[in-house]
Amino acid sequence: MSSARPLAPPVERLAIVGAGLIGASVALAAAGRGSRVAVHDADPAVRRRAAEVGIPGVAASLADAVADAELVVVAVPSGAVAAVVMEVLALAPGAVVTDVAGLKAPVVDAVERGAATSGRDASRFVGGHPMAGSERSGPEAADAALFQGAAWVLTPTERTDDEALRRASAFVAGCGARALVLGPERHDELVAIVSHLPQLVASALVDTAAESVDELDALLAVAGPGFRDTTRVAAGDAAPWAELVLGNAPALVAALDALGARLAGLSGAIAAGRGEDVTALLARASDARRRLVPKSDAPGVDLVVPVRDEPGALAVVTRVLGEAGINVEDLSMRHATHGGVGALLVRVRADAQARALRALGEAGVAAHVDGERLGG
Amino acid sequence: MSSARPLAPPVERLAIVGAGLIGASVALAAAGRGSRVAVHDADPAVRRRAAEVGIPGVAASLADAVADAELVVVAVPSGAVAAVVMEVLALAPGAVVTDVAGLKAPVVDAVERGAATSGRDASRFVGGHPMAGSERSGPEAADAALFQGAAWVLTPTERTDDEALRRASAFVAGCGARALVLGPERHDELVAIVSHLPQLVASALVDTAAESVDELDALLAVAGPGFRDTTRVAAGDAAPWAELVLGNAPALVAALDALGARLAGLSGAIAAGRGEDVTALLARASDARRRLVPKSDAPGVDLVVPVRDEPGALAVVTRVLGEAGINVEDLSMRHATHGGVGALLVRVRADAQARALRALGEAGVAAHVDGERLGG
Repeated sequence: MSSARPLAPPVERLAIVGAGLIGASVALAAAGRGSRVAVHDADPAVRRRAAEVGIPGVAASLADAVADAELVVVAVPSGAVAAVVMEVLALAPGAVVTDVAGLKAPVVDAVERGAATSGRDASRFVGGHPMAGSERSGPEAADAALFQGAAWVLTPTERTDDEALRRASAFVAGCGARALVLGPERHDELVAIVSHLPQLVASALVDTAAESVDELDALLAVAGPGFRDTTRVAAGDAAPWAELVLGNAPALVAALDALGARLAGLSGAIAAGRGEDVTALLARASDARRRLVPKSDAPGVDLVVPVRDEPGALAVVTRVLGEAGINVEDLSMRHATHGGVGALLVRVRADAQARALRALGEAGVAAHVDGERLGG
Repeated sequence: MSSARPLAPPVERLAIVGAGLIGASVALAAAGRGSRVAVHDADPAVRRRAAEVGIPGVAASLADAVADAELVVVAVPSGAVAAVVMEVLALAPGAVVTDVAGLKAPVVDAVERGAATSGRDASRFVGGHPMAGSERSGPEAADAALFQGAAWVLTPTERTDDEALRRASAFVAGCGARALVLGPERHDELVAIVSHLPQLVASALVDTAAESVDELDALLAVAGPGFRDTTRVAAGDAAPWAELVLGNAPALVAALDALGARLAGLSGAIAAGRGEDVTALLARASDARRRLVPKSDAPGVDLVVPVRDEPGALAVVTRVLGEAGINVEDLSMRHATHGGVGALLVRVRADAQARALRALGEAGVAAHVDGERLGG
């Protein structure tokens, strides 16, 4: 290519250990940006599958794969990460090494302690955690765009070399992600709060509801979008969580206990008839939620548009609004409790409400204003 | 009209007391089905506004409004419901009377006790609660379609006349809603579980997060859709909740304590390293959630489609999928954490994934497969 290249490939020679979803997606993303990529997986069957689905540079030997790499991504199951990182630090003396495990303090501590014990240099290691994923796994699920626009946390310590952090950041940018630098403990505290705790709470809430309610039809009929939203993540697969939450025990126990104290406080306030305490917590939380997730609470109005559960039912709604120059601020689907007709919830700016209803009406689409709260 | 009428109007003569959102919407819905409607509100200003926005049959006198009604809907603020119901029972000796308050046991108990004390007949009263609403209030927000497809709980007791329940059910059907008969206490227990408890939990979770995290940008960057879903209802207005939850104290204290016990159990299991206990609760909850909200967990694949935050950005996606004959099983919007480009999450059946990606690709729309769980 003789045309202008606005960006040099962030890392010219990249090696990846582990050809699962994340490793294989990194390979596709980096190769797509012009990096030379080598991929090793300890499992020959995974190597074969990876090669079959077009993952580039699959190599049978770990040593060959990492030999002249500038940066090595260790994307193996979290229990194996520290040992593989130590091995790669030995095999690839010039390479920066990073990993993708969901908890950082255990990995970073193990690598730094291992390096100190064996007299190796851990300054070339930078912990990492891409905030992207999929419910699918394996090289067949690899996706070059998986990290596009996602945050990718990097967790250097005081022992980390500045150049290693720079190279790891360039690699992350080359995958289309935004590097976010945090201490390993801080990362683990944050994911305890924004990922592990909501999962446990949603599951505990569903378990409480299921125990209390034997008439499922009645529960389904009265359950509004609030119950559905609050418990949505509980439907996911239970298997990956035990290892994550046990590995993050101190942060998570603190978070669970802080939440438990609030719920006990609410229970006491309700039993004692102290409505002002309930209102105070809810008002404080409402403010915080609006600050934390600003966009989805943009001032707006939810329009409820009944749609048929069939192909093309949504197209007329979005086309009519688009042609009327009305931006959709938020969008979700409300399912009928007993199958059949559901509704689309379309949030538009309050000042566009009348125009939106008129445009939909002229196109023969029934719509009305609604909200998340149950009536009464 | 001499043409065939497939359905007689469910209630020929309907009166409504209270011209707020619910009362005025009932008036529009019932009048639209051919009922004769009279609406009274104690506040002359509300009566004037109701008449101005086209609410039919606005009457200055309560006695005139209810005089010859077959059914009277009491849609006044919950603190006033029991007294107004007693008054209407006296003024309209032939009418069935129902209300729309969000808690049923306090209203039903007050009416039945009041009737016993005054020697009046409460067998014509049937408690009611339409599971529909809006964040807006007042007659200006009235909507004839507000109850379309919604559940509408009716709470007869052993003192309720069968004919009164039949007439109330016909009225509910005439509003386009589905009648669901529950005991008043059972209703209140259910809304404690599916409405009040999720609200309190979401608010307590946000409050915990806000206290733990001073770096909002970091939290925003790592917060995935799980945190957003689980805390969404916490953004709502705090004001209406104190009265609801204090009025539902016994059911809600029991629910909060049951949930608190589960969270304490999880905290203990995590501190003690008992991963099997964590997995057991999460697996049980995952099964329950899939049973409770079946549709939104239909086997499917979430496609992530980056969209520009501007009018018409969604139309091309839904049009392409519709024209390709692909049904959208679920739909939501993922906002960029720092403004700008967001993404549409489109759930399609797993067997339609390849076709959907191909159709979008041919239309020049980038899309990839994703999921709700954070990677790592």
